[in-house]
Amino acid sequence: MISFLNDYSEGAHPRVLEMLARANFEQNAGYGEDVHSQRAKEYIKKSIGRNDVDIHFIPGGTQTNLVVISSFLRPHHCVISAETGHIYVHETGAIEATGHKVVVAAGEQGKLTPESIQAVIDYHSDEHMVLPKMVYLSNSTELGTVYTKKELTAIHEVCKKNGLFLFLDGARLASALTCKENDLTLGDIARLVDVFYIGGTKNGALLGEALVICREELKEEFRYLIKQRGALLAKGFVMGIQFEALFQDNLYFELGKHANEMAEKLAVILKNCGYSFYVPPCTNQLFPILPVKTVDKLLQEFKFYVQNEVDERHYAVRLVTSWATTRESVDKFQDFLENL
Amino acid sequence: MISFLNDYSEGAHPRVLEMLARANFEQNAGYGEDVHSQRAKEYIKKSIGRNDVDIHFIPGGTQTNLVVISSFLRPHHCVISAETGHIYVHETGAIEATGHKVVVAAGEQGKLTPESIQAVIDYHSDEHMVLPKMVYLSNSTELGTVYTKKELTAIHEVCKKNGLFLFLDGARLASALTCKENDLTLGDIARLVDVFYIGGTKNGALLGEALVICREELKEEFRYLIKQRGALLAKGFVMGIQFEALFQDNLYFELGKHANEMAEKLAVILKNCGYSFYVPPCTNQLFPILPVKTVDKLLQEFKFYVQNEVDERHYAVRLVTSWATTRESVDKFQDFLENL
Amino acid sequence: MISFLNDYSEGAHPRVLEMLARANFEQNAGYGEDVHSQRAKEYIKKSIGRNDVDIHFIPGGTQTNLVVISSFLRPHHCVISAETGHIYVHETGAIEATGHKVVVAAGEQGKLTPESIQAVIDYHSDEHMVLPKMVYLSNSTELGTVYTKKELTAIHEVCKKNGLFLFLDGARLASALTCKENDLTLGDIARLVDVFYIGGTKNGALLGEALVICREELKEEFRYLIKQRGALLAKGFVMGIQFEALFQDNLYFELGKHANEMAEKLAVILKNCGYSFYVPPCTNQLFPILPVKTVDKLLQEFKFYVQNEVDERHYAVRLVTSWATTRESVDKFQDFLENL
Amino acid sequence: MISFLNDYSEGAHPRVLEMLARANFEQNAGYGEDVHSQRAKEYIKKSIGRNDVDIHFIPGGTQTNLVVISSFLRPHHCVISAETGHIYVHETGAIEATGHKVVVAAGEQGKLTPESIQAVIDYHSDEHMVLPKMVYLSNSTELGTVYTKKELTAIHEVCKKNGLFLFLDGARLASALTCKENDLTLGDIARLVDVFYIGGTKNGALLGEALVICREELKEEFRYLIKQRGALLAKGFVMGIQFEALFQDNLYFELGKHANEMAEKLAVILKNCGYSFYVPPCTNQLFPILPVKTVDKLLQEFKFYVQNEVDERHYAVRLVTSWATTRESVDKFQDFLENL
Repeated sequence: MISFLNDYSEGAHPRVLEMLARANFEQNAGYGEDVHSQRAKEYIKKSIGRNDVDIHFIPGGTQTNLVVISSFLRPHHCVISAETGHIYVHETGAIEATGHKVVVAAGEQGKLTPESIQAVIDYHSDEHMVLPKMVYLSNSTELGTVYTKKELTAIHEVCKKNGLFLFLDGARLASALTCKENDLTLGDIARLVDVFYIGGTKNGALLGEALVICREELKEEFRYLIKQRGALLAKGFVMGIQFEALFQDNLYFELGKHANEMAEKLAVILKNCGYSFYVPPCTNQLFPILPVKTVDKLLQEFKFYVQNEVDERHYAVRLVTSWATTRESVDKFQDFLENL
Repeated sequence: MISFLNDYSEGAHPRVLEMLARANFEQNAGYGEDVHSQRAKEYIKKSIGRNDVDIHFIPGGTQTNLVVISSFLRPHHCVISAETGHIYVHETGAIEATGHKVVVAAGEQGKLTPESIQAVIDYHSDEHMVLPKMVYLSNSTELGTVYTKKELTAIHEVCKKNGLFLFLDGARLASALTCKENDLTLGDIARLVDVFYIGGTKNGALLGEALVICREELKEEFRYLIKQRGALLAKGFVMGIQFEALFQDNLYFELGKHANEMAEKLAVILKNCGYSFYVPPCTNQLFPILPVKTVDKLLQEFKFYVQNEVDERHYAVRLVTSWATTRESVDKFQDFLENL
Repeated sequence: MISFLNDYSEGAHPRVLEMLARANFEQNAGYGEDVHSQRAKEYIKKSIGRNDVDIHFIPGGTQTNLVVISSFLRPHHCVISAETGHIYVHETGAIEATGHKVVVAAGEQGKLTPESIQAVIDYHSDEHMVLPKMVYLSNSTELGTVYTKKELTAIHEVCKKNGLFLFLDGARLASALTCKENDLTLGDIARLVDVFYIGGTKNGALLGEALVICREELKEEFRYLIKQRGALLAKGFVMGIQFEALFQDNLYFELGKHANEMAEKLAVILKNCGYSFYVPPCTNQLFPILPVKTVDKLLQEFKFYVQNEVDERHYAVRLVTSWATTRESVDKFQDFLENL
Repeated sequence: MISFLNDYSEGAHPRVLEMLARANFEQNAGYGEDVHSQRAKEYIKKSIGRNDVDIHFIPGGTQTNLVVISSFLRPHHCVISAETGHIYVHETGAIEATGHKVVVAAGEQGKLTPESIQAVIDYHSDEHMVLPKMVYLSNSTELGTVYTKKELTAIHEVCKKNGLFLFLDGARLASALTCKENDLTLGDIARLVDVFYIGGTKNGALLGEALVICREELKEEFRYLIKQRGALLAKGFVMGIQFEALFQDNLYFELGKHANEMAEKLAVILKNCGYSFYVPPCTNQLFPILPVKTVDKLLQEFKFYVQNEVDERHYAVRLVTSWATTRESVDKFQDFLENL
């Protein structure tokens, strides 16, 4: 069985593993205060093109989301998310567990719009309701779509105008920044949002997300907040080393590109077979619409999720590629599909 | 510089790393539902000698503590800890951040006693005070001491009598169970406590603690609670593989034994040089009392923490060994100390 | 200006005030352990027709909601509410501040249905999502509608089948139980729900809600939970005395009836003037649809809220009556409306 | 039985009750936005001698404490309290339930000192521990002692120097400010602390504490925070009216004075009978040391708490007077004691 279930099925890219092995017997400082973490941060700052950001490595995405949101909001503040947002749907109430409501703004193909954000702000009129203070979005989104520079700028403006923080979940940022539709750089993102993260787990690392705090006032005492939520790993260098490997010579972006290429191939195959898409293909997540019977047959050889029922006879399914997806896997999918 | 600062300076034991490398390109199920995690759990159950426990892998110790304590207590319940307990002192209020007070019971050399626990229970008399519902202890303790079977049984009895859960933090369980003073088995522990964990981070793994839930009523819906706190790693197999390596042929205990042997050697060296100890040597943490001048000189060649001032001219310092401590490091310490 | 803004504009019913004055110099036990609270509980139990319930007096509605919900849910549990539910919209995230997500089920005129509840339960399929464990509804609802015995029984069944607690917010229970559409008794409610409250604030008391816990397993240690949220008033007897006055000879229900009668009169007046209703009149909250111009004129003499815009030229407004609404006020409204 | 158990046994001072009755049928705005609350705030500002403070009325003390502390601290911040502090001992973990650790500083007769505060700050050295950000003290303290202007100034200085907020719990402020040892005015307090409250519950009101926010940056959005914790009463005017009665012509201070006079009389009686005190008498709480036998006899006629055992044959007991304590009660105590 070949899996297109997700982008976290395999371990780490070989160059990442090698660097872990090479550093294995060094005696490193604990809690991320080691030289590898230091170097990784410098490489990332270089990629961003700015020195005035704070970077922290945090084991997982849900954890990063909950640390960030609970750290920057006062108790009566809420965070705005798209209905498809990971924090709204798939984190078992992790944000609410820190005391904050997640309020939904209408999205379009997984993306928020300035209008939908403004509407939520306007609706929350007085002290009997929560007060919106942060916008959460992901790039790429849960539907594989990406924000253009124009779109992100417009959201930046609406946040600025209303005094809201803007937080970008970049669990799949590698794929977002290396797809054809993208016109954003890491530097653009750092300029347009207050805080964001660069996902390692889904792009070549065993674990780890690199949180980047761009706004000065949010930097203060942040290590306390990471520690309190249990997110300050004793062996922080395990993440530092991996991000060092990913960013010292752009491996991170190469891997994102690879995932996108594999997805593109799959998209072409599907189009050639006459299938349409629930959401236009863009990054490493594809949502083709397939006949139920085709889905059933494919599931005998391939693993993937059925996203939803489109009509009685069609499903939208989700196919995910990653840095580890091989051409052979894609070829097998093509063979199988063409010979159904 | 040789470091005796802690037991989490190096990466993973080579056999652990090898197994990670070997499994690297497998496509594993996410969130700990993979075959490696499954096998690791079976090995651990075998070591415990029981099948009726639930096992979960969680990245770090603070995280495990906060997940466990917040999951099993109702809002008005508190947890009892020794004054030296990690949750009371060194977790940045992680337990309080989940809503629960940590109440201190008097300890002896880092260990709780049934009497001190009962005194805390008796003091909390009505609904104007929190209600004690759990006892937290660590083995080995923060001062390197261990509980005997008799001591742990007595604490088990006081918990049972008063309807409290007993939770054992085993971040350093390998060292505890392989030291000379120990007369407890994993099976004893599983019988005497309601929930405990087997620390991987400080004994040969890159990260990961194996939480063991022994009490039936605590098992229910536990994966929800792990997920909510951000502790359900997407690549859970990274922990599963490591625990598989540690438990398939007792590597875990060998590593604990090695750490203790290195500590014993250091203890003998220190005793031979005429130094006494703040706490009697027992596991992989030593607390010799040294003249301030000696400490200053040692710090030029070795890294370690000064625990506290004993008198104007003496410090108690902490020396920690681990699975990775070499005989060469110990020999150098001996040379240096003898030639001061 | 005459106010139809809400049902908490005036102080307390004279008989309530008198009883407060009469007991003023007694030396009562603190924290609700006084004889008046005891007597009030007995009167209420008599009204319910059951002795095996626990009753607690809590100052306000939001506070009662947050104490109840946070006390009975484990961290990963969520509560289901209608979109119009007070806890979802108008409590500034009070429930989320205790760590729990409020999940919305589709409602009809403010009321939940068994189907909408079941749909929410079915949607929440695994540990990556919160787990529904309680249903919250209000009677009368925020739109003035009431549940019939059949409807509440059906919701009771869906809760029982799925292992959910059922919690009824009775801030306006007096009006609900004394309206024409009602076929529920206090005894029915105690049988069909696990926990509910009998609102005093909106029906003749200065403050206070009587929380009734019907389910055995929820009773335990509840005073701790009240105290922890700051809801255990030192002078608990101030609430006890008021509920004694309200329940010793059915004043509570008389007041509800009066509020409904005043609302009915208003409804007739409005109907006679040719106006229709956004929601069919039923209890002490009316939602007539009025021309914008009429609304503007009425607002010069009467206070009330504009609920929402129905179309460009019409508003649905909210008129609320209470135990304190006088016939004179209603007559003036009639005069004014008929002479527009 | 005459009760010296506490200062919240009776209802409200007759002038308070009268004003409640007089305003009973007014239609007041909800949630504290009424004219009585407005007027009460103006009277209080006049008493303080400043207009630039924000005042909010909150039903009870525990609630006020938890709203204040949770509103002004970030998640990793702790609050420092004396060991006898109400928030540390007698609020069922209310502060921890909002996520914050209460850290104890050594006190002297219930009072904190600048040295003890500084020691706690110094001990909390890095991100593995909570960060002290607020000092909580009460005046009068739980042992009936009061802070002098010099003492409060010194604590103000240590807070300022270290960037901590200073919060004064004034549940018994009336008694504190009208006792002989006092040299503080309301204006001094407003100048020296960041936030404090003026207790109504224990000094003539049915319920209610007047929270005074002095520091500009803490005022923002505070009504959201009150609402979220369930502390924004629908009939806020019930508290407004009472504080209007208490502050329009200094009734508040007269009542505090009366309580102190009654306590002084009791103290003289006890001294004349040869008894000493656990803490020197000062405000409305007395802690005489009495033979166990005497205590047993007194308890047949009078209610009071036994504070603690002093030695095998002596108890320190607590006698509390209030605005409602009569000379007759004091005389009866004298008679009884002298005729033992």
